[in-house]
Amino acid sequence: MTLMFSLDKDLETRRKKIQAKMLEIGADACIIASNVNIYYLTGTVFAGYVYLPASGEPVFFVRRPVGLSGDKIVYIRKPEDIPALLSAKGIALPEYILLETDQLTYNEIVRMQAVFNAPKTGNATALLRQIRSIKTECEVEQLRFSGQKHAAVYAQIKACYSPGITDVDFQAKIEYVMRTSGSIGFFRAFGSNMDIYMGSVLTGKNAEAPSPFDFALGGEGVDTSLPIGSNGSVLLPGTSVMIDMAGNYTAYLTDMTRTFSVGKLPDIAYRVHQLAIDIQDAIEEKSKPGASCAELYKLSLQMAEKAGFAKYFMGTKQQAKFVGHGVGLEINELPVLTERSKELLETGVAFALEPKFVLPEIGALGIENTFLVTDNGAEKLTLFEEQIIEL
Amino acid sequence: MTLMFSLDKDLETRRKKIQAKMLEIGADACIIASNVNIYYLTGTVFAGYVYLPASGEPVFFVRRPVGLSGDKIVYIRKPEDIPALLSAKGIALPEYILLETDQLTYNEIVRMQAVFNAPKTGNATALLRQIRSIKTECEVEQLRFSGQKHAAVYAQIKACYSPGITDVDFQAKIEYVMRTSGSIGFFRAFGSNMDIYMGSVLTGKNAEAPSPFDFALGGEGVDTSLPIGSNGSVLLPGTSVMIDMAGNYTAYLTDMTRTFSVGKLPDIAYRVHQLAIDIQDAIEEKSKPGASCAELYKLSLQMAEKAGFAKYFMGTKQQAKFVGHGVGLEINELPVLTERSKELLETGVAFALEPKFVLPEIGALGIENTFLVTDNGAEKLTLFEEQIIEL
Repeated sequence: MTLMFSLDKDLETRRKKIQAKMLEIGADACIIASNVNIYYLTGTVFAGYVYLPASGEPVFFVRRPVGLSGDKIVYIRKPEDIPALLSAKGIALPEYILLETDQLTYNEIVRMQAVFNAPKTGNATALLRQIRSIKTECEVEQLRFSGQKHAAVYAQIKACYSPGITDVDFQAKIEYVMRTSGSIGFFRAFGSNMDIYMGSVLTGKNAEAPSPFDFALGGEGVDTSLPIGSNGSVLLPGTSVMIDMAGNYTAYLTDMTRTFSVGKLPDIAYRVHQLAIDIQDAIEEKSKPGASCAELYKLSLQMAEKAGFAKYFMGTKQQAKFVGHGVGLEINELPVLTERSKELLETGVAFALEPKFVLPEIGALGIENTFLVTDNGAEKLTLFEEQIIEL
Repeated sequence: MTLMFSLDKDLETRRKKIQAKMLEIGADACIIASNVNIYYLTGTVFAGYVYLPASGEPVFFVRRPVGLSGDKIVYIRKPEDIPALLSAKGIALPEYILLETDQLTYNEIVRMQAVFNAPKTGNATALLRQIRSIKTECEVEQLRFSGQKHAAVYAQIKACYSPGITDVDFQAKIEYVMRTSGSIGFFRAFGSNMDIYMGSVLTGKNAEAPSPFDFALGGEGVDTSLPIGSNGSVLLPGTSVMIDMAGNYTAYLTDMTRTFSVGKLPDIAYRVHQLAIDIQDAIEEKSKPGASCAELYKLSLQMAEKAGFAKYFMGTKQQAKFVGHGVGLEINELPVLTERSKELLETGVAFALEPKFVLPEIGALGIENTFLVTDNGAEKLTLFEEQIIEL
């Protein structure tokens, strides 16, 4: 896609937000090496480091690829080259440096600590995650684009179905539509243990299977090395099929779930599905700047309880303890709509809201949409039919 | 797939190899939390920790999923629960503990250090990577299965082509064949910066584009957030198409590349491709237990130089400095066939050998196969036509 807003100006906005925060806490610089944060700060991915001082211009120390040019680019062979190159530029070495201690490995951080030998170090991961939770103009533009593509692909899901198909083959057909519609394929998740591939298709009993990962629902998976999602089940009449596939049509991910049915479902399924939509609508109504993420979560739980369906809410055997989460460059950004969250919504926050239920024997019901918090309330970015769609 | 050999016995073999090494270096225990090593040690993935003492039985401390059972399973809420639970089992707390310092984040390791407060810590990542480089019976069985499926899928690639198709759409069709043939989708790579999705399709000039990642070749990619692989180029007559898609048909990955052509290529392309095959065959001949990985790499470079094609070997603008790498649960395991490698091949090593060239204007040429080192030499696991296949 071609951006309407200036990326260079947007990148400057992002850096200034980080710099303001560094000045506030007294940090002299941060050094960034994760792909996700290098992309956030530069608009591309390279092997190397972004050195961002609390004041002044950043330096991009690049190992690979060859051929990058620009006044910020300095090629290095190894991180140990950095201090002398900073000094040569007249940049004082930091006394208090922020490192990505929740993203880089222990040995990578220990190496960086030795390189800078700063008296004080802090957590760049936490700071960047907080800042990344408020989206800039260019980021919003890309989220909107992803949301539109996401909805357009979901409109083609029904045509991927044929009687007797397995969840895996159904998913493969959806993946094909996604890829030929511009899905980048790969997408990023925060946390070393969040393995996933393109999203999740859950049908019937498989929706109850608990997984080791911290996603809303589980599924057995096709192999014990990746115990999540579709497991080869045939789509059976009277069961639901929940489609929760990635909206990775730009680097900015939207998250979206729709529930399909093979023929008609028992009445209870439609009641539970409507409850999920009601929960969504109630939370959407309250999703204004200043709203408490913890209160929004509690509202979902209260509504599930009041309707008598709490035991099916967000799973059965294993119930997820959140109903929404930030989205952006990673599928699980801040804030999290969970009981212990201390966060308040702000203008510019993008979040996925996913009230879901699992009915044993029938399968998963419910919905997920991605919202952008604006001054006037929540704007839905993934617009598509929300009722159960019969296959 | 159903394993012919006993997985439980195989897991015991793996643990005993690690325990023997721990006894050798004087370590009391290792604690494992990465998905890949938890799978290696247990045959499944859970959120939690495997505690493996230098002698005796391991304990599996599980946070998620619910419902696992067995005499090794102990449920915990947080890692701080572990020491008291070990003491309750009569297991002495370790004085010298190995942690996955090249896989877990800095903060995860610091937390584990505080939990155990052991006087001495060491690197479990390095130890496990070394042990994992020698495959057990069950692992070999799964590699063979992946190799056979991999070859069977490659036999269907030609049928995915239509004149005027783009590399991205061609790749999507191949991915669809892969997924409906049992590809797990997701696969693992070692190192936090190795982003990739299903593999790589490179055609024409895009084969020269350098990438930030440490794979053999690059490609521009479709988005600056993932600068690798196909970039939307139309497949043009007179250019090559290199297909290097994952062999993730079990948790054990085979790696395999074949070169296709749109119509006929200039003569030089066939000469260079034959050179790649000759390099492969020469290295295969020498790939016996005791062979030096550095010498094997040097042999490839010498052959490329002697033929006058060194400047096209493993890229042009950016040339990879290896010609092969171990494969298994991750696509980039030990050993590495590179100049500074100190490793020798051993029986049970599985490695991908990928002599490749890039000719500007034409594209990438060459080949990749996965081999298993046996007492009698190298056994090729990915058997399929090796000449350039005309589309």
